[in-house]
Amino acid sequence: MDIFEHMEAALSGLKSAGNYRVFAELERRNSAFPRATFYEDGGATRDVTVWCSNDYLGMGQNPVVTGRMVEVIGQCGAGAGGTRNISGTNHHHVLLERELADLHAKEAALIFTSGYVSNWAALGTLLARIPGIIVYSDALNHASMIEGIRHARCEKRLFRHNDPAHLRALMAADDPAAPKMVAFESVYSMDGDIAPIREICDVADAFGAITYLDEVHAVGMYGPRGGGVAEREGLMDRITVIEGTLGKAFGVMGGYITGPAVLVDFVRSFASGFIFTTALPPALAAAAAASIRHLKESQSERQAHQAAVAKVRSALDARGIPHKHNPSHIVPVIVGNASKCKWISDVLLNDFGIYVQPINYPTVPVGTERLRITPTPLHSDADIRHLVEALSALWSQCALARAVA
Amino acid sequence: MDIFEHMEAALSGLKSAGNYRVFAELERRNSAFPRATFYEDGGATRDVTVWCSNDYLGMGQNPVVTGRMVEVIGQCGAGAGGTRNISGTNHHHVLLERELADLHAKEAALIFTSGYVSNWAALGTLLARIPGIIVYSDALNHASMIEGIRHARCEKRLFRHNDPAHLRALMAADDPAAPKMVAFESVYSMDGDIAPIREICDVADAFGAITYLDEVHAVGMYGPRGGGVAEREGLMDRITVIEGTLGKAFGVMGGYITGPAVLVDFVRSFASGFIFTTALPPALAAAAAASIRHLKESQSERQAHQAAVAKVRSALDARGIPHKHNPSHIVPVIVGNASKCKWISDVLLNDFGIYVQPINYPTVPVGTERLRITPTPLHSDADIRHLVEALSALWSQCALARAVA
Repeated sequence: MDIFEHMEAALSGLKSAGNYRVFAELERRNSAFPRATFYEDGGATRDVTVWCSNDYLGMGQNPVVTGRMVEVIGQCGAGAGGTRNISGTNHHHVLLERELADLHAKEAALIFTSGYVSNWAALGTLLARIPGIIVYSDALNHASMIEGIRHARCEKRLFRHNDPAHLRALMAADDPAAPKMVAFESVYSMDGDIAPIREICDVADAFGAITYLDEVHAVGMYGPRGGGVAEREGLMDRITVIEGTLGKAFGVMGGYITGPAVLVDFVRSFASGFIFTTALPPALAAAAAASIRHLKESQSERQAHQAAVAKVRSALDARGIPHKHNPSHIVPVIVGNASKCKWISDVLLNDFGIYVQPINYPTVPVGTERLRITPTPLHSDADIRHLVEALSALWSQCALARAVA
Repeated sequence: MDIFEHMEAALSGLKSAGNYRVFAELERRNSAFPRATFYEDGGATRDVTVWCSNDYLGMGQNPVVTGRMVEVIGQCGAGAGGTRNISGTNHHHVLLERELADLHAKEAALIFTSGYVSNWAALGTLLARIPGIIVYSDALNHASMIEGIRHARCEKRLFRHNDPAHLRALMAADDPAAPKMVAFESVYSMDGDIAPIREICDVADAFGAITYLDEVHAVGMYGPRGGGVAEREGLMDRITVIEGTLGKAFGVMGGYITGPAVLVDFVRSFASGFIFTTALPPALAAAAAASIRHLKESQSERQAHQAAVAKVRSALDARGIPHKHNPSHIVPVIVGNASKCKWISDVLLNDFGIYVQPINYPTVPVGTERLRITPTPLHSDADIRHLVEALSALWSQCALARAVA
């Protein structure tokens, strides 16, 4: 078999199925978000409004964050210069870990180079190194959690998405003496639905399981101090490990876990993906800490964010553009066809200056292709009108079904 | 089994074996590297000279790098705001990928959040998705390569470290029709030895294998444009995939692969660890590109680096401090005992203001515990004298064997 022919064929398969990804080349504009410069193939540029960023609160351009980042570059330089163990632990990493432990009211925290790595490394290490452990994993858990579980090669059970009764049935069928972990998310990225955290914890408690909650699409945005959905619902103490990201609402980069000191030390001491990698630049750690501190106090970003989400939803409703009703800030407009989804996205970009990436398989199941709209506090009322009018025009042009009022 | 008791016991095991890691808390000082502030347990601080950084050329504080990072924060803000596919591809990522492809004279490049992730994701994807492929992996390959190979669950053969004859014997025993990959490093981090790249490529060619070379401890430092050992030896075109890091000699953070366009597109399209993670902050990408561009032209950092390495080696020789003779910039002083290695490191820190992290198992085999000294162009002659005199004093005090002249 020729390796390169095989790769060509695999890529052709993606293309013919409409699943080949073409990245939109953007240049974010500091202090003008959600405005950005879009680069055409030939290098020509034009202005667009971004409607699909995970910089949910616009903290990536908040002067509290960018100012601190610049300040600490001035103090410490660019990179960390080593792994955490070999010269790479900076004072700013230690301060950030304290900030995160405090955010989730846990004994300790550990930062990773990304949320992906934090899930992969933490789940992979815990599940591989606790003999006989069984993991119960929500069927829609993120790729990074799936990879961590796969890495561990432990016993695993998939419970139906957000279904505590199914979780209970699976746990009841297993050896009561086996150590157990329930791994799930609070806000699911693509549908924007929220887990029944209390009910899942009740089941976990009944079977003596530890719990692992991914709050990457919630930290900064929910709870009186931005601790996530578990904080909002007064459930942080029911969760053993809360995992989060510094790269979405906090506006920077990196991931973390928080939990009992011994567990965090265990991951710190045994996780290959933590040990053998260069630490985050000190300036990123300091910028993330500044962002977290700010959002522990300030409610205005969260309030404006929720208000923008509500406005987008009601404007879509007024025009009959169907979108998934969910209790989060993520507004999925289901198109249900890969090519049509791509076409709508292309027209929005080319004719309306609106950038919403089409979400196709394998990120979502075939037949549920969608535009995933993420309003931010920085989208104006005019931005919202422009988006919804453009969608409405396309819905007519494309003969897509309207929602029934 | 109690999960927490199990974790306590595992950590106690590390402690009693002398392998429990205590991270040195430092604050790097921009424009004063290798000087840093060391934080004691109680929070008191004092000055140290860092002798174990992977910021090999001090580019982490080069104004070309830090200035560009600050400039692009001003232009684009802090984070990327999304995955590469969903609003996270920034113009500066595209420019960096062009810079990297040019550096290694390859058709294309792809950046990852770290060197660890680049190895894990690229090897994991290539080896899992090319049916029937056999990988031949150097016995001392880095943890990230091992994890990528493990992820793929393909057929694998370990060849003895830097031994093309053993590689040949293994390849000759396998099905000639099976697709094959040889995966190895140029500079090995802990011993500082360098692979016989030409001989390994000759064997790979004889059996029609593609080659994957990790140059993370070489890029920026070897070759007329900092392309690594393969560039220096005129062998870049013999290597299918060159993998490197932006977090060591380039002074920032992130990893990459370069290679044929179809292969890079294949990894881009199928690697979970690339697809489902937030992109590098644009300012990091721009800073890394500035660093690469600078080191493509400037020879002074490489020359001063090699001169500092030679001075350290000859000063160690003059005092009879035994160190591994190797053809790279890494100076391993073998102590051969975990507790003694830790003790020497503690005394260097406390009595001499010198920070060299002890390297113990599992990073190196038991019985080869070492101080891994990494001279930089920014260590002065006085720094070198101070280091070697301190080591010499300790060698006497600790009754360690001197090298025979």
